[in-house]
Amino acid sequence: MFAPLQNDTFLRACWRQATDHTPVWLMRQAGRYLPEYCATRAKAGSFMGLATNVDYATEVTLQPLDRYPLDASILFSDILTVPDAMGLGLSFAMGEGPKFAKVVRDEAAVDALAVPDMDKLRYVFDAVTSIRRALNGRVPLIGFSGSPWTLACYMVEGGGSDDYRLVKSLMYSRPDLMHRILAINADAVALYLNTQIEAGAQAVMVFDSWGGVLADGAFQEFSLAYTRRVLAQLKREQDGVPIPRLVFTKGGGLWLDQMASLDCEVLGLDWTVNLARARALVGGQVGGAGKALQGNIDPNVLFAPPAQIDAQVKQVLDSFGQPHTDRTASGPTHIFNLGHGISQFTPPAHVKALVDAVHTHSRAMRQAR
Amino acid sequence: MFAPLQNDTFLRACWRQATDHTPVWLMRQAGRYLPEYCATRAKAGSFMGLATNVDYATEVTLQPLDRYPLDASILFSDILTVPDAMGLGLSFAMGEGPKFAKVVRDEAAVDALAVPDMDKLRYVFDAVTSIRRALNGRVPLIGFSGSPWTLACYMVEGGGSDDYRLVKSLMYSRPDLMHRILAINADAVALYLNTQIEAGAQAVMVFDSWGGVLADGAFQEFSLAYTRRVLAQLKREQDGVPIPRLVFTKGGGLWLDQMASLDCEVLGLDWTVNLARARALVGGQVGGAGKALQGNIDPNVLFAPPAQIDAQVKQVLDSFGQPHTDRTASGPTHIFNLGHGISQFTPPAHVKALVDAVHTHSRAMRQAR
Repeated sequence: MFAPLQNDTFLRACWRQATDHTPVWLMRQAGRYLPEYCATRAKAGSFMGLATNVDYATEVTLQPLDRYPLDASILFSDILTVPDAMGLGLSFAMGEGPKFAKVVRDEAAVDALAVPDMDKLRYVFDAVTSIRRALNGRVPLIGFSGSPWTLACYMVEGGGSDDYRLVKSLMYSRPDLMHRILAINADAVALYLNTQIEAGAQAVMVFDSWGGVLADGAFQEFSLAYTRRVLAQLKREQDGVPIPRLVFTKGGGLWLDQMASLDCEVLGLDWTVNLARARALVGGQVGGAGKALQGNIDPNVLFAPPAQIDAQVKQVLDSFGQPHTDRTASGPTHIFNLGHGISQFTPPAHVKALVDAVHTHSRAMRQAR
Repeated sequence: MFAPLQNDTFLRACWRQATDHTPVWLMRQAGRYLPEYCATRAKAGSFMGLATNVDYATEVTLQPLDRYPLDASILFSDILTVPDAMGLGLSFAMGEGPKFAKVVRDEAAVDALAVPDMDKLRYVFDAVTSIRRALNGRVPLIGFSGSPWTLACYMVEGGGSDDYRLVKSLMYSRPDLMHRILAINADAVALYLNTQIEAGAQAVMVFDSWGGVLADGAFQEFSLAYTRRVLAQLKREQDGVPIPRLVFTKGGGLWLDQMASLDCEVLGLDWTVNLARARALVGGQVGGAGKALQGNIDPNVLFAPPAQIDAQVKQVLDSFGQPHTDRTASGPTHIFNLGHGISQFTPPAHVKALVDAVHTHSRAMRQAR
């Protein structure tokens, strides 16, 4: 049904298999920093107009691949499609973040929540299949969703927040209601990701963008437990091919040892985490179990001149250290990425400097061995 | 010159000496959640009108002490007074964050920076002396400043930021200029805190509010090194009384082991940090060296009903565990605080529930021993 994969570097690294270079992709790689993206978005009229149109979503997903030799693509969509399908009414005002027409702040609103009919998300699954076909095997396609906790933040706050006052007020005042929201979110996210897998996603990633705002203790109870509930329900393979699962908790570095027990293949890290320490903690040994690590350069490095970008990329690669090169066993691997989504103000030429630096230096590291 | 201290619980805990209860104070305890604060601020006309008027600053500093049995007071001022004295022109628009009229984004602006004449900050030192007199020995008075890195964030960005793009662009592009800014800031902060000590501050705290936004590596080079430079210059005592030094890096939990080597007595922690782990890492043993720990309840707990506040306070106290009770030696101590400044939306009655819960439970813990 789909063309054979030509570049499996990303998937090999997910499975902790040796690769010739460190694969690289960038969170939000199809985005406003690219003039061609802005042109497509202008045609679409709005962000949701873009995300719900299969042809536009396919077009923008492939745009960064035409500019840069990236090792993976990621579905163009939003982390909030699931609560939108629950009937909360997602919109994006120009130049602003997401907004929900309805919010979930009391028992009646929680009572009204349910796992949405996946038909309401058909546009996402159609986009997955369309993108996978358009990729024609160039690189693998990653599907994704927000984590149950991250979705709950937006569902309660009604949009972005700088203090998470409303969602935390509910959590501390009525933990029973918060657990009900999270259980529904987890089951919805699992079904959503499984349907993406069936539609053609070759890996799936859970973005726990706001897990890091929780207190120690609350993180484990209200975020990690529900990410676990999602993972437990995910399909392990599609058409005989195993599907790796990635989890990224922004600001979750302090809980890395607890995330080591998640039933997933890859842990994403933000720039505050020391990669050598993370590798020692959860990366495992050659021949042993462990997690592949993804990350973690500060996206603001991309505002420096190319020479500085090159030096910073080298520093991140060196911090992880030599990836294993044993073709007969699994072992510690690194997938290069930003520690957060790319900024809309990023000069596109600087992205090229970054991607090239990752490939060049990571090949040299393996040869210097 | 000043009345003798009646409640030395906070200072004893700073020095890792046994206390009968866990002392508690709250970051931003004199603030907008108190109607009496809003009334004084209305009289003053503006935030800076309030901060620069000795009588008003004294009045609002004492307001929370009249409501709650807090164990310490903190100078009412802003972390950005130092760059204001450097000539950058600080202002606060109603309902908005701080804004600087001038910004520091190029070599010419850096060339123009210098440690300011402390006479320009006379209003702060006068407030310190006035507050210390008005306290009349009730509780100790804490002086404070922003950290060199945190000041630099505002000086470059010109105000708050959600991505720190400008300050990080400068840092990654021209680290030499950033180091020059930070060296000046560190020397200015040290002089500023020493002058607060001479004016009557009985402890001083460095707020590294934005240290946690830095990448691993950058934090050590651009934040921690300059906090160290401040600490190295601080007065150790005043009139024969030793002055404890507190450092709080919001989001700095991952670097706690490196902060253990700071020449200070107390480390502040935000709510993401597990207190038991922090204590094991840097709290030391009875009779041995270590840091007192300050923090770290999520300020959003204060939006829950009093029964939940009580339970969460108990959980934080239990997480630190039994403080040492040996009156003949120093050992692990805990100073209760929020993990960040109190929200303006906090119900004042809930603050009473928190303070009472800290005192009640922490006394009971020691007796249950």
